[in-house]
Amino acid sequence: MLYIGIDVGGTGIKAGVVSENGTILHKLSCPTLRERGHEAVIHDMARLSLQVLAESGHALEEIHSVGVGIPGMQDPRTGRIPFCTNLGWHDVPLVELLQQEIDKPVYVNNDATVAGLAESIAGVSAGTKNSVFITLGTGVGGGVVLDGKLFMGPHGIATEVGHMITVAGGEMCTCGNRGCWERYASATAIIREGRRFAEAHRDCALFRAVNGNLDQIEARTVIDLAKAGDPDCEKLFDNYVYHLTVGLINLINLYDPEIIALGGGVSKAGTFLLDKVNALLPEMIFFKTMPHARIELARLGNDAGIIGAAMLGRQEA
Amino acid sequence: MLYIGIDVGGTGIKAGVVSENGTILHKLSCPTLRERGHEAVIHDMARLSLQVLAESGHALEEIHSVGVGIPGMQDPRTGRIPFCTNLGWHDVPLVELLQQEIDKPVYVNNDATVAGLAESIAGVSAGTKNSVFITLGTGVGGGVVLDGKLFMGPHGIATEVGHMITVAGGEMCTCGNRGCWERYASATAIIREGRRFAEAHRDCALFRAVNGNLDQIEARTVIDLAKAGDPDCEKLFDNYVYHLTVGLINLINLYDPEIIALGGGVSKAGTFLLDKVNALLPEMIFFKTMPHARIELARLGNDAGIIGAAMLGRQEA
Repeated sequence: MLYIGIDVGGTGIKAGVVSENGTILHKLSCPTLRERGHEAVIHDMARLSLQVLAESGHALEEIHSVGVGIPGMQDPRTGRIPFCTNLGWHDVPLVELLQQEIDKPVYVNNDATVAGLAESIAGVSAGTKNSVFITLGTGVGGGVVLDGKLFMGPHGIATEVGHMITVAGGEMCTCGNRGCWERYASATAIIREGRRFAEAHRDCALFRAVNGNLDQIEARTVIDLAKAGDPDCEKLFDNYVYHLTVGLINLINLYDPEIIALGGGVSKAGTFLLDKVNALLPEMIFFKTMPHARIELARLGNDAGIIGAAMLGRQEA
Repeated sequence: MLYIGIDVGGTGIKAGVVSENGTILHKLSCPTLRERGHEAVIHDMARLSLQVLAESGHALEEIHSVGVGIPGMQDPRTGRIPFCTNLGWHDVPLVELLQQEIDKPVYVNNDATVAGLAESIAGVSAGTKNSVFITLGTGVGGGVVLDGKLFMGPHGIATEVGHMITVAGGEMCTCGNRGCWERYASATAIIREGRRFAEAHRDCALFRAVNGNLDQIEARTVIDLAKAGDPDCEKLFDNYVYHLTVGLINLINLYDPEIIALGGGVSKAGTFLLDKVNALLPEMIFFKTMPHARIELARLGNDAGIIGAAMLGRQEA
């Protein structure tokens, strides 16, 4: 059987036909244009899916199911999307509307969660039965596979790894709590700390790199200067790595996976990031004589959304 | 079938004959006297097991297996206990030595982990398939049941909940890291903060309650004064509840269990503790519109060790 995977975000919709082993046979994309409202967006998701299927040369009869990755979550009790800030959705019956246009089973899950499933099937975590995927972007999302299946918890609210509190009383989070991991391990954290530092040290390399326009400081600005040997930015980045590793230690202490895959924007720092994490992590492991999770870079990049969404149906098959 | 459960700690050995549904039919105990060395202690564990079996009126043929809860862990690769500080054990082949005296399958696990299994079968979490048990004592231990089975992780190092870091850069922990949850959510934390406060406020009720002998401050001293309405101790206890709840939020965000059961010394504060946790927790939950774990007091108390150890064999059956 084949599977259709749809990855819908605030800016674009991607759809692909995916094989049983997680290979994309064909893919297409179009803009989301979310201001049109959810009906028009969901219609385009269906249209793009049928188009990519036709172009792939396969027939609807060969399709097992359609999977969708969204930047939010589905309420498993109702099958509806209660809210999805990035898409501007509120109480949207996604499955119902999509099935009106494509008569196949439809599965929906969070975009980071499906990316974790994709990495576990066709990416860096392939071959393991227990893996965690972390996306280090504007926020921190996660997908957890335990015993070969996506782990969602009985209420479907598990694996909100970004809102694990690692610095009680720390930075205010959008969720209302203080000190969530994503306030320290996201690209946003690097930007915040970079701007704070440059503001306070106007003679620093970071300040000069943006000609004093602090709002031009991006995570990449700090990382590139750190890579180039600027001691201030290296210190900023090392502090980021410490907070990232704190959360990884927690994931190891709680899930004990075989592998934790790092994805998202910050993971583009590549081995510069990975080497620092792998130097620090062994010192912080609780059971120092026991084997523990490897930390690796995720491999599927932007394709993880399509692949993982498609594979939602495979794991239900 | 019946099961034998052994609970061995630094001061005492307890053994019981346990039914299929987790009821203790008969139990006995004796002192550990750990200074004799592990051979003598393990011999007493076997002797006590055979004695409790004989007194129960049942025969060895009716016994499925023997389970042992230890204040440490077994290396699943070797079946040996690499180290167990409370027992003074180092690289002890517990299963092998015990089987030399009782020819039955022997299962070993951490004491908090087996208590979690016990609560999930015969305690407050009975009827759920996903539960977490937390023991709030000298440290913080945990036992996690997912989908009806003890969750240990592929390397057997999962559910070290006490060493989840909730205050990065915070109090130094015995494990070498800073800010582990057990530095904030254990009875030890209440004692530490109580002593610090009384030291700095020699006119406070807590200082007077121990006549200035700060090393006489126990967790109970602080809790009893808080219950009696002393504002300083209530503030100390509320701060404890905040840090406890931070970790509970993390457990919900990561495991999403149906129930989290609180056991150990601090849980003896009863509804005074539970009501405060249940007042704070809903404010800190990430998905405020979704159902989430109930927080409850554990029910089995000291029997949890025997029952859970015995049930280790049942879940392998």
